[in-house]
Amino acid sequence: MRNLTLLTDLYQLTMMNGYVESGKADDIAVFDVFYRQMPNLDFAVVAGLEQAIDYIENLHFDDSDIAYLRSLNLFGEKFFDRIKDFHFTGDIYAMKEGEIAFPTEPILTVKAPLFEAQLIETALLNILNHQTLIATKSFKINQETAGDPVSEFGLRRAQGPDAGLYGARASIIGGCTSTSDVLAGKMFGLKIAGTHSHSWVMSFPSEIEAFEKYAELYPDACLLLVDTYDTLCSGVPNAIKVFDKLKANGHKPLGIRLDSGDLAYLSKKARVMLDNAGHTEARIFVSNDIDEHIVSTLKMQGAKINSWGIGTKLITAAPQPALGGVYKLAGIMKDGVLVPKIKVSDTQEKTTNPGFKTTYRIYSKSTGIALADLISLRSEHFDESSPLTIFHPTETWKKQTLTDYRMRDLTVKIYDNGKLVYDRPTLPEIVEFAKKCKQEFYPEYFRLINPHIFKVDLSAELHKLKSELLTASRK
Amino acid sequence: MRNLTLLTDLYQLTMMNGYVESGKADDIAVFDVFYRQMPNLDFAVVAGLEQAIDYIENLHFDDSDIAYLRSLNLFGEKFFDRIKDFHFTGDIYAMKEGEIAFPTEPILTVKAPLFEAQLIETALLNILNHQTLIATKSFKINQETAGDPVSEFGLRRAQGPDAGLYGARASIIGGCTSTSDVLAGKMFGLKIAGTHSHSWVMSFPSEIEAFEKYAELYPDACLLLVDTYDTLCSGVPNAIKVFDKLKANGHKPLGIRLDSGDLAYLSKKARVMLDNAGHTEARIFVSNDIDEHIVSTLKMQGAKINSWGIGTKLITAAPQPALGGVYKLAGIMKDGVLVPKIKVSDTQEKTTNPGFKTTYRIYSKSTGIALADLISLRSEHFDESSPLTIFHPTETWKKQTLTDYRMRDLTVKIYDNGKLVYDRPTLPEIVEFAKKCKQEFYPEYFRLINPHIFKVDLSAELHKLKSELLTASRK
Repeated sequence: MRNLTLLTDLYQLTMMNGYVESGKADDIAVFDVFYRQMPNLDFAVVAGLEQAIDYIENLHFDDSDIAYLRSLNLFGEKFFDRIKDFHFTGDIYAMKEGEIAFPTEPILTVKAPLFEAQLIETALLNILNHQTLIATKSFKINQETAGDPVSEFGLRRAQGPDAGLYGARASIIGGCTSTSDVLAGKMFGLKIAGTHSHSWVMSFPSEIEAFEKYAELYPDACLLLVDTYDTLCSGVPNAIKVFDKLKANGHKPLGIRLDSGDLAYLSKKARVMLDNAGHTEARIFVSNDIDEHIVSTLKMQGAKINSWGIGTKLITAAPQPALGGVYKLAGIMKDGVLVPKIKVSDTQEKTTNPGFKTTYRIYSKSTGIALADLISLRSEHFDESSPLTIFHPTETWKKQTLTDYRMRDLTVKIYDNGKLVYDRPTLPEIVEFAKKCKQEFYPEYFRLINPHIFKVDLSAELHKLKSELLTASRK
Repeated sequence: MRNLTLLTDLYQLTMMNGYVESGKADDIAVFDVFYRQMPNLDFAVVAGLEQAIDYIENLHFDDSDIAYLRSLNLFGEKFFDRIKDFHFTGDIYAMKEGEIAFPTEPILTVKAPLFEAQLIETALLNILNHQTLIATKSFKINQETAGDPVSEFGLRRAQGPDAGLYGARASIIGGCTSTSDVLAGKMFGLKIAGTHSHSWVMSFPSEIEAFEKYAELYPDACLLLVDTYDTLCSGVPNAIKVFDKLKANGHKPLGIRLDSGDLAYLSKKARVMLDNAGHTEARIFVSNDIDEHIVSTLKMQGAKINSWGIGTKLITAAPQPALGGVYKLAGIMKDGVLVPKIKVSDTQEKTTNPGFKTTYRIYSKSTGIALADLISLRSEHFDESSPLTIFHPTETWKKQTLTDYRMRDLTVKIYDNGKLVYDRPTLPEIVEFAKKCKQEFYPEYFRLINPHIFKVDLSAELHKLKSELLTASRK
């Protein structure tokens, strides 16, 4: 495993040195990872926890790291004493991968000595921001394909090897069924998929020879790319000839792939040609710069598409390639008591929620459907047998009292005093959990345009604390 | 070094198996890496060659790779025989890192057995697409800051660890002076930079105590973040108090950092406050979701900003997070002669240039300024002492005859029969070369809005070949 201990911003290290020098390194601090409300980011599918844990487990400053830091002439001896046998000693709580998180909800909370909590900020954000971004994009695309399988095809356009590898993993958590990325398949046990390229066709004297050879090699996985020369005049007719032969020999042709041109028109024409030739089970697979909006319009046009290969816009989450998750101080322990902290901003969305918190999802007991989330202090207890009044976090007159409900704490404990206490799920288990989480919501929340906005409220106690701190900040 | 041999699309491996089975694995093919004309992508700064070479040097299928591939039940024994001792045996030509490349120009050309050329497509594109994308974004941002130093700050929003690390490297090639990414600093010898965060200030009982402690620790690198509570009422006045003391003790305060609010207004107000207090040399550093367009408008408004920290939009190249570089077959050797190949498309920009090619940059001999690029066949020879007539690649009546000119082949040979023959430059040498390349152009080509479009022409011979192949394709 790569040593990513120095995968951090320089200021984390200079602050850590500062905390040592000012006797604050062991002060226990609470930091929350969350993302803020942004356009087109009304919900997110949490991903990356597995790699965040790998990172924490592998934290150590090796000799070359220390030599490099010494060469910077920025740090004192106390700092070097402390990083020599560095390991994480704090607590971490987090939402499980596949969970649906809404803006401002703590996705992960660190409670640890300032010295440690500061070091890990950057890498935790890097890992969680990236995978959550891609899992969310994958979720949105899969929401539009409405059950048609989607394969992640973006490795060549990913922002470096890791973006391809972890992006493939996150795509699967978001709902894709396979990836073209062989190394991701090997590393994470993902289903891998692929056909052939234009260069395969061009390397033969004719298209039909290229197709025939491919069918001979992969008679039971024969998906032919039909747009190298002319889709309807050459590609589809040649594919049909090859499929006829395959069928005569007892094989079931997979279908064709369209990678250019007007996919609505071509898929309808190709469908008719395949059907007329008796290949009603041959599938039509498309690729070519697709995103959730293009899927949606193709569906509306009645395009005859069965499977989707989505590359660039999935693997980079174009045109919004960053989640914008942050890591904010929520409190510092003083004499055994947590002093809650708030970052006040002129913009309401940038003002943080103070204290040591968790998020509950509230469900209708009778339907099992999610009704609202409640961000609360960890010290609070709720009695599901009593009515619960929830209210809008700023327009507090918008109230609702729930009776027939149950609550679920969305976080689990990952680290307890530096010890990993979380039984890590397998990727199939994560995929299963993600599906379950999704089914708890009305699909209106996941609509592309004007989605219904899910209620995320603050508990009465947290709301009171926040109001008090805001008032105090102006004194 | 990580083994990235399986960092490829599955279809490359199934095609490689197909080439082995159809006796074509040893056919020598020529593939070009290039990017197509896209909005906001009129030029690109080449980057990533160093990592592309690392990748080629380290290519090998290890036992676990082979075991994984066997488990897929897709490949024949001939394929496994061939990958056992796999190494690259072909030729590679490429533009050097820092070179400015225009759409359709081959950035890298592979001439190798089909079996090898197909394997490396995906990883080469992944590496070159990513770093070239970020170097280009960095170039554009630095073009707008017009000499003010820019620090890359995006690690926490990068698409995974590699995107942060190689993105930092590419940012430096594009013109940034430093990065916050410590591991990138260690790996590539980059200058690293950083200040402190809001949590540093919030961990002290008051802002002034946080500033004082920071100044005590870093008296000669004292850059204070002034927007935790109230920039103009608290942050800047407190910073001035601390700077006064630093100055009295013989130190030179670095300056302040603004990370929120109206940067034009706040920077002007803060400048006046600092100047009135005698801190005319204190710099004003800004961060907060900046890109080249925001730099440009801040400059137009006369903002008093000296240094820039740019994160998310640099490290992800938002809102256009992919370069879209492709790898296209240009020819296959048959009986010792290259048979040129063309991929015809209904859209002119998607039709490829055939043959084994290179690109020349043509300069005015008297001014040294770049006049046009000429994509040519490698077999062509040009005599700089004779007049040269160049013409538009499609509107061929647009002609120009040059006399006082010199030409530079933009590519160098990297691999010769599998042997690395390129003397790899250091990163400072690359940065120097990038600066030199940039200076050869009028700045009008790099304007944000309506840039002048640099001429990229085809040589007469290449144009003739392309026309013939296009005509033949319709027979």
